[in-house]
Amino acid sequence: MYGRGSFDQLDEIIAPHRKDEKPMIFLVDHFFSAGSGGNGKSLINRIPLHGNDKIIFADVSYEPKTTYVDQLAQQLKNEFGSVSGVIGIGGGSTMDLAKAVSLMMNNPGSSADYQGWELVKYAGIYKVGIPTLSGTGAEVSRTTVLTGPTKKLGMNSDFTPFDQIVLDPELTADAPADQRFYTGMDCYIHCIESLTGTYLNEFSKSYGEKALELCRKVFIEKKQWDAACDDMLMMASYAGGMSIAYSQVGVAHAVSYGLSYLLGTKHGIGNCIVMNHLEEYYPEGVKEFKYMVEKNKIEIPHHITKGLSDDQFETMINVSLGMKPLWENALGKDWEKIMTREKLMALYEKL
Amino acid sequence: MYGRGSFDQLDEIIAPHRKDEKPMIFLVDHFFSAGSGGNGKSLINRIPLHGNDKIIFADVSYEPKTTYVDQLAQQLKNEFGSVSGVIGIGGGSTMDLAKAVSLMMNNPGSSADYQGWELVKYAGIYKVGIPTLSGTGAEVSRTTVLTGPTKKLGMNSDFTPFDQIVLDPELTADAPADQRFYTGMDCYIHCIESLTGTYLNEFSKSYGEKALELCRKVFIEKKQWDAACDDMLMMASYAGGMSIAYSQVGVAHAVSYGLSYLLGTKHGIGNCIVMNHLEEYYPEGVKEFKYMVEKNKIEIPHHITKGLSDDQFETMINVSLGMKPLWENALGKDWEKIMTREKLMALYEKL
Repeated sequence: MYGRGSFDQLDEIIAPHRKDEKPMIFLVDHFFSAGSGGNGKSLINRIPLHGNDKIIFADVSYEPKTTYVDQLAQQLKNEFGSVSGVIGIGGGSTMDLAKAVSLMMNNPGSSADYQGWELVKYAGIYKVGIPTLSGTGAEVSRTTVLTGPTKKLGMNSDFTPFDQIVLDPELTADAPADQRFYTGMDCYIHCIESLTGTYLNEFSKSYGEKALELCRKVFIEKKQWDAACDDMLMMASYAGGMSIAYSQVGVAHAVSYGLSYLLGTKHGIGNCIVMNHLEEYYPEGVKEFKYMVEKNKIEIPHHITKGLSDDQFETMINVSLGMKPLWENALGKDWEKIMTREKLMALYEKL
Repeated sequence: MYGRGSFDQLDEIIAPHRKDEKPMIFLVDHFFSAGSGGNGKSLINRIPLHGNDKIIFADVSYEPKTTYVDQLAQQLKNEFGSVSGVIGIGGGSTMDLAKAVSLMMNNPGSSADYQGWELVKYAGIYKVGIPTLSGTGAEVSRTTVLTGPTKKLGMNSDFTPFDQIVLDPELTADAPADQRFYTGMDCYIHCIESLTGTYLNEFSKSYGEKALELCRKVFIEKKQWDAACDDMLMMASYAGGMSIAYSQVGVAHAVSYGLSYLLGTKHGIGNCIVMNHLEEYYPEGVKEFKYMVEKNKIEIPHHITKGLSDDQFETMINVSLGMKPLWENALGKDWEKIMTREKLMALYEKL
């Protein structure tokens, strides 16, 4: 469902999925908790609570961890036994948490056991995604990116996508400008990586081209932010997420995963920090990216790896080189000859 | 699912939906029956039959009728009681038949009872759509256009869309060039009608623009037909169908519905016959349409309404003016003042 004000249809949408006395759980980005500023409070008041429904504010100060997913799922099992559904309301981290918690209500063990591809055994409980930030495409992806004890990797499976998404561009209107830019750039960088990559078909190309065009309209053509920007960036995020179905991301993502694993750098800003130094791999994309940074008056952090130990650099390099499909998509089958440990070390030192 | 050769994954895709001894029913466009030419026979041989699965060749000489839907559903009930699923393989008519038969396996009465909006009461049986012609978007729409005793109108409902679609562009490679053009133009005309209409949001706009761009690549930029054209036109069809979710078609569709109701004119060619005379409503679109007709060396029939009686013209006018949302989308709230019976009569006489 897409449309301005469509959030107000949520009660009607989830009604047929309420089972017996089991509650609906609204997992909401803590940005919207009371006192957080913005129009957060009014969004909370619009959540259609019935019976023993519960709002849980998700702490997304850091990228989602498998331990946090396990804790949330356990808390719900302890309190309710089972629940009717999980409704995620927030940015990409909240989307991923909602998907992962839904899956862990029906799958035994720890979410860390399912980091990988096609490891999830059972469908999760009913899950709904309602993004309040545009760009990650997490609302439509078949993964949920989690930081686990040994890796940052998603639960990639046919059971992972939401059963329903509600795309209401009004919900993104109050996002802070820098956060909005970083998240929007996640979509832009996705598209550059996938459209120049070696994995692609017409499905992913069509969606990727559309997402890229919408990012350009929002961040280059528009003189100032308006409601149409919210509409377009929400579609860019959706199209970018759909594009990933048959394509892959590339160098920026592979390198930024190392940063977020070690330093907890959030995904959007992490991609921007890396993209700033990737002229060698994406010359035109990086040029356009830098133009957008300047035009939108955004500061991209520098020198975030300064003072790290050799061991810490090693950790980032190991995490990054583990993302084999991303490297192969970007650099082809012989990627290991191109992206050596030394070359990656030099790149991390620049960030 | 989208991809060259993805048809060969059909067995695996439908396996989890097989119930007890109940068969899967493959409803296949009669174009692919033995002796029909093309590579029809080899497609039939690739259908993954098990147990008492059955292939039924759908007679799509005419647009689907409610009587034919009812007859097919009754035949399946008589022979099997119930079935595991219906898999439609063919063009838009076959897609619509498969959707309607699936719904009528679980809803009482005649399909004519459900022509309209939100009238379908129960979900149908599992249904899969596999298009072998690109352009109608029937593979993703929430309707199934049927000719009933009193109207040509779809079963529009949340239960109507397929549970699964398999988009394999290889399947469209052997379509006759004129049929391919007419069906492709259905998509093109959709887009012109929706993008210039009064009903539109960013979701439908994004998809409509992409579909239009792909149609132009295929029918204007390409020097000759190749595999990339099949890839692109299949995505155009999908995107055009998605676009209709929050938009509407317009004058060409409203007028061509009258033709097909009375004369059985097929939808793609009917739209082309009408579009040829709509300069007043879509000046740029009609100009480009005529260029594509010429470039692709297609003959659009003329004078198909010659010799019809006054009563017959009245019938077409009544059917056409009944499509209120289409007219309102095209001409605004005061459409009845613009498109009078006299004006519509004059248009039908030109066709």
